Amino acid sequence: MSVDKSRQKTEVNKPMGGLKIIPLGGLGEIGKNTMVIEYGDDIMLADAGLAFPSDDMLGVDLVLPELDYLRENQHKIKGLAITHGHEDHIGGVPFMLRDITVPVIYGPALALGLLEGKLSEIGLQDRTTLTKVNPRQVVQIGCFRVKFIRCTHSIADSFSLIIETPVGTVVHTGDFKFDFTPVDGELYDIASLTAASESGILALLSDSTNTEREGYTPSERTVWRKLDEVFANAQKRIIVTTFASNVHRVKQILQAAVKYDRKVAVLGRSMLNLAAISRELGYMTFPDGLLVPVEEVNKMPPDKVVILTTGSQGEPMSALTRIANNAHKQIQIVSGDTVIISATPIPGNERSIANTINALSVRGANVIYGRDAGIHVSGHACREEQKLMINLCKPKFFIPVHGEYRMLVKHGELAVECGVKPENVFIIDNGDVVELTKDKGQILPPIKAGVILVDSSRAWEIDETILEERRHLAEDGMVVVALTLDHKKNVLAGPDVAMRGLNLPGGITPDDLVERVKHEILNSLKDRAVVGSLAEGELKSYIKEVLQGHFADKVKANPLVQVVLQEVAATKAKSLSK
Amino acid sequence: MSVDKSRQKTEVNKPMGGLKIIPLGGLGEIGKNTMVIEYGDDIMLADAGLAFPSDDMLGVDLVLPELDYLRENQHKIKGLAITHGHEDHIGGVPFMLRDITVPVIYGPALALGLLEGKLSEIGLQDRTTLTKVNPRQVVQIGCFRVKFIRCTHSIADSFSLIIETPVGTVVHTGDFKFDFTPVDGELYDIASLTAASESGILALLSDSTNTEREGYTPSERTVWRKLDEVFANAQKRIIVTTFASNVHRVKQILQAAVKYDRKVAVLGRSMLNLAAISRELGYMTFPDGLLVPVEEVNKMPPDKVVILTTGSQGEPMSALTRIANNAHKQIQIVSGDTVIISATPIPGNERSIANTINALSVRGANVIYGRDAGIHVSGHACREEQKLMINLCKPKFFIPVHGEYRMLVKHGELAVECGVKPENVFIIDNGDVVELTKDKGQILPPIKAGVILVDSSRAWEIDETILEERRHLAEDGMVVVALTLDHKKNVLAGPDVAMRGLNLPGGITPDDLVERVKHEILNSLKDRAVVGSLAEGELKSYIKEVLQGHFADKVKANPLVQVVLQEVAATKAKSLSK
Repeated sequence: MSVDKSRQKTEVNKPMGGLKIIPLGGLGEIGKNTMVIEYGDDIMLADAGLAFPSDDMLGVDLVLPELDYLRENQHKIKGLAITHGHEDHIGGVPFMLRDITVPVIYGPALALGLLEGKLSEIGLQDRTTLTKVNPRQVVQIGCFRVKFIRCTHSIADSFSLIIETPVGTVVHTGDFKFDFTPVDGELYDIASLTAASESGILALLSDSTNTEREGYTPSERTVWRKLDEVFANAQKRIIVTTFASNVHRVKQILQAAVKYDRKVAVLGRSMLNLAAISRELGYMTFPDGLLVPVEEVNKMPPDKVVILTTGSQGEPMSALTRIANNAHKQIQIVSGDTVIISATPIPGNERSIANTINALSVRGANVIYGRDAGIHVSGHACREEQKLMINLCKPKFFIPVHGEYRMLVKHGELAVECGVKPENVFIIDNGDVVELTKDKGQILPPIKAGVILVDSSRAWEIDETILEERRHLAEDGMVVVALTLDHKKNVLAGPDVAMRGLNLPGGITPDDLVERVKHEILNSLKDRAVVGSLAEGELKSYIKEVLQGHFADKVKANPLVQVVLQEVAATKAKSLSK
Repeated sequence: MSVDKSRQKTEVNKPMGGLKIIPLGGLGEIGKNTMVIEYGDDIMLADAGLAFPSDDMLGVDLVLPELDYLRENQHKIKGLAITHGHEDHIGGVPFMLRDITVPVIYGPALALGLLEGKLSEIGLQDRTTLTKVNPRQVVQIGCFRVKFIRCTHSIADSFSLIIETPVGTVVHTGDFKFDFTPVDGELYDIASLTAASESGILALLSDSTNTEREGYTPSERTVWRKLDEVFANAQKRIIVTTFASNVHRVKQILQAAVKYDRKVAVLGRSMLNLAAISRELGYMTFPDGLLVPVEEVNKMPPDKVVILTTGSQGEPMSALTRIANNAHKQIQIVSGDTVIISATPIPGNERSIANTINALSVRGANVIYGRDAGIHVSGHACREEQKLMINLCKPKFFIPVHGEYRMLVKHGELAVECGVKPENVFIIDNGDVVELTKDKGQILPPIKAGVILVDSSRAWEIDETILEERRHLAEDGMVVVALTLDHKKNVLAGPDVAMRGLNLPGGITPDDLVERVKHEILNSLKDRAVVGSLAEGELKSYIKEVLQGHFADKVKANPLVQVVLQEVAATKAKSLSK
């Protein structure tokens, strides 16, 4: 059974005055989840996340959703509901608040704790009101009654949303798995779901992350068995990395340290930050004196030490990567150290993690890692759990969210298998508008929903044209030509030629090529009839074309060519530069 | 049980006049397998491969092993034994033969068929003698008696090598799995292995690729079940991609086409080439008229068409990627087409393949892919098979080969589990030298074994410094400053400033920045006492430093700065360029 998106989208539908569901981010991707739920003059937002760049986004650190739609509909925005504290759900808030007014943000204590820190850092804490909600608490956001219900995921204090709207009930799962033995004992609130379902659920928006994986995601608790085994057998230091936000995992690691009488040094800003906030808010408890400064651990016996660190994705600047490359100031790997990679690669990071593991192995570390090692479980539902969710909700309409396009399609097909009518499944992209009434669902013409690329160290945006120049430079390098002319276009100085990142064939030296290029340019300027008639810009283009032809022909390269022309009045010329 | 490489390597050992095993490529990596086996004045080579570049090798197409050791020992080289026809085993031969004499190359017919084509293309076919070997054939290469025995792998006509050396028998597995129901009926020649083992095997060099995977690799034949199911159910066109070299897979795809009465169009040069050679050599048989030109298929009913294409790794220029992006001249995806990705990502390619699948899904294709789909099996042994190999050979010494470092370590540990003494396991890198006598094994000081980066479209090498410039350009862009001075260093024209790939903060326009930079330069030149005393090169450095400081300070960027100075004699100046 397949879901035909093209059919849905090619129909030109007229608005019915119904409920609109408009993702600004998170559809067709993993990351920057930002959902608009709109009815009449009311908009509520569900999550406001950021995403991380792909490899071809040279020099980009963060990716944000374009929020023009919110600016244009500022007057409608009544509030934001946060499901949990992961960056792809809260990381966009500080950027959103720069020029968009969100009167109130509701969310779980841990997420708001993290958010508060972010907002204070940049002085935006007074732009909105952060309001903590408890499980089963109901808040009113415009015309929407939003019930926050406990769900299980890889960060503590996660919620799904049951949203009563004027046309019916919408369930937004947030990120979820069904963990029936959660580490903190906080079970998924299935009863609230089924109660809503008994009265009828109009639409289900459900997490598609693991829709390519059969079966069930194991409970977070299963990681304990392997952790316990590794700690029991380790003879020297244990170095563990995981996602800083996985409070449950960190908790289990600290438990293992206590059990095996080891002290813990924490490395990496995000790990320290999360540990502090989680402890302060009571999500994590551990004995005083368990944590020791990293300076201490080199003085302690190796079998008394755990080092808990960031770097589970092989991030170049992270503590673990620096340790692996022997570039960390305080920690050096000693043969016999055990390193636990308690995480899986986010797609695209496979290579960097593999490099880290190789480097650790070279230094003699015993590295515990990988899909089959039992040292990590996902925070997202696999197919059987996704089916359970659809069965619990029995929605009329189904919108798979939180996934790349192929995942949305697979998840949509799963819903059809579970009894949702194919025409009631909407496979949508960011900017698409689904409109629902009690009886009918349709797709309206899309709104604008692009991306903003951010250079985070400098906190400003990067234009796509800049990226294209960078890709060009990265692929074939650059040639700079400078030339001084008199007003009659006689050459007074130069041409001077500089090349960067340009690769040359074996037999040709850079000096050779520079000479050839100079010759080529001077030659091209000899045709006075042509040259004399050219305006400044035209002359630059003319020289550029001559050079591009030369490079394509003689060295089969396509470097970026930058021509600089200068005019002076003199007639005697001598080149200074080489 | 762990294998301590550091201990082995820190010992300074003296040569014992034994057998030397020296990998020039393929250790600490997947790719460019090139093994030197040396005794006295004889060297035999086992395989000569190439590797593909990692993402950070900007503009690099191929990676080759540095062969200085072979140049220095040219007189010793007696021949090359090829195990099978994959690029990482034969792709280095054309480059090797450019300046190294290899008197004879022995190998299976398919590998030599592929090699012959490569060598003819570049006119090197007369540099060596290609000699086909049959299963169980024994050839003499210098002092080595080399027996080629049938093995099972993902390309037809693969061999393992049993090498009788003056100090004992060495088994080199090549790439292998134990496929007990191979598509071509050619079983692994276990009897030859055990016969050798009965007389005692000194050393086993074994394929480590899948040492991170438990259990057994399924038989190639299991793919048929899923292929048959997909073909039975497909309503429209079927587009299949796989590794061109996987002759067995291609054969099964053609079989399915025949069974379901579809014609096949083949796209992609490597796929066409492999199909032609395989058919010519008898590895593949199919009815005349099965293959049709791609121009034909758009005229045929969709349910009569199979398109067999390259692009299983999401390569940007491959046919499948172009089809997915709607950029292929002849083939456009129509909703309802079935696309079969009969391959897994080579590490590092995950993202590009995922992008291809997403793009195909967006166009309405039903895409069959993924680890659990049953549509692909690996060509390499998993852990149980690796244990079987060690048990069949019962080697005294064990050298895991064909793997990244972490895999070599895991494979080494497996050998220890199977009874090899820990001190007899050698975890080595390219350039390391293992020396073996009948009784003893040790590591000698390494030889030089680097990499050669090749820009294949231009067929020449790329220097690491060029790559660093490209990374710099890719990260932060470039600024060009041109300035014309008189001989007293008064500014006659300029400064002219051009920027490429440089990202600016929100509030600053490029024109703003150019003005500021000009101002900064002119300011810096006002200090006549300093400027007057500077030589040309010093003045350039001086301006460069001023600018780098300005960019770091004002726009927090670190672009590559190129300063071009020109000298003319005039006193009146006007800038032509902007």
